[in-house]
Amino acid sequence: MVKMFVIMAYDVNVERVTKVLHVGRRYLNWVQNSLLEGELTNAQFARLKADLHKIINEEEDSVVFYVLRRQEYLDKQILGLEKGGQTIMI
Amino acid sequence: MVKMFVIMAYDVNVERVTKVLHVGRRYLNWVQNSLLEGELTNAQFARLKADLHKIINEEEDSVVFYVLRRQEYLDKQILGLEKGGQTIMI
Repeated sequence: MVKMFVIMAYDVNVERVTKVLHVGRRYLNWVQNSLLEGELTNAQFARLKADLHKIINEEEDSVVFYVLRRQEYLDKQILGLEKGGQTIMI
Repeated sequence: MVKMFVIMAYDVNVERVTKVLHVGRRYLNWVQNSLLEGELTNAQFARLKADLHKIINEEEDSVVFYVLRRQEYLDKQILGLEKGGQTIMI
C-alpha cells in the first residue's frame, strides 16, 4: 500500500476549530495548534478531504495540504517547544 | 544559488504572534494564520532562525519548519478559501 506524507494546516472560524481538529486527528498526528501531519494512502486522503468538506465553510475557512510522495524528501526542524508528533530538534 | 522550499508553521503566545509574523514575512510568503512558505538559501534560512530565536520564548512557543530540497517534490492543495500565496485549488 503506497502511502504519502501529508501536512495539514487549517485556518478556520473559531466555531469550527474543534470539529476540524477532531476530523483531522482521525487521520493524522497533532503537531501544534492548526497543524497536523502523517502518512496516508490515496483513499484515506480522499476520505479526509470529503469529511472536511462536510464541516468547513468554503467562504470563510481554509485548509492547506502539503503532500509529498516520500517523507525522505522532507527535513523537519523545530525551534522552541516540541508540542507533539515525532520530529528532529535543533 | 541553491534555494530550498521552506514551510513555517508557528504556535506562539499571543503576545509574540505579531513579532513572529513580522520576522517571518521578511523571508517568506504569508499563506494563512500561523503559516508561511517560500524559497530560501541556506544563509537566509539560518538568519530567519537566528532572528526568531531572539524573540520566541523557548519554553512556551513552537515554530515548526518543513524543508524540502526541491519544490517539485511537493503537491499543495487547498480546501475552501485561498487566503494568500500561490497555490493549486481543488
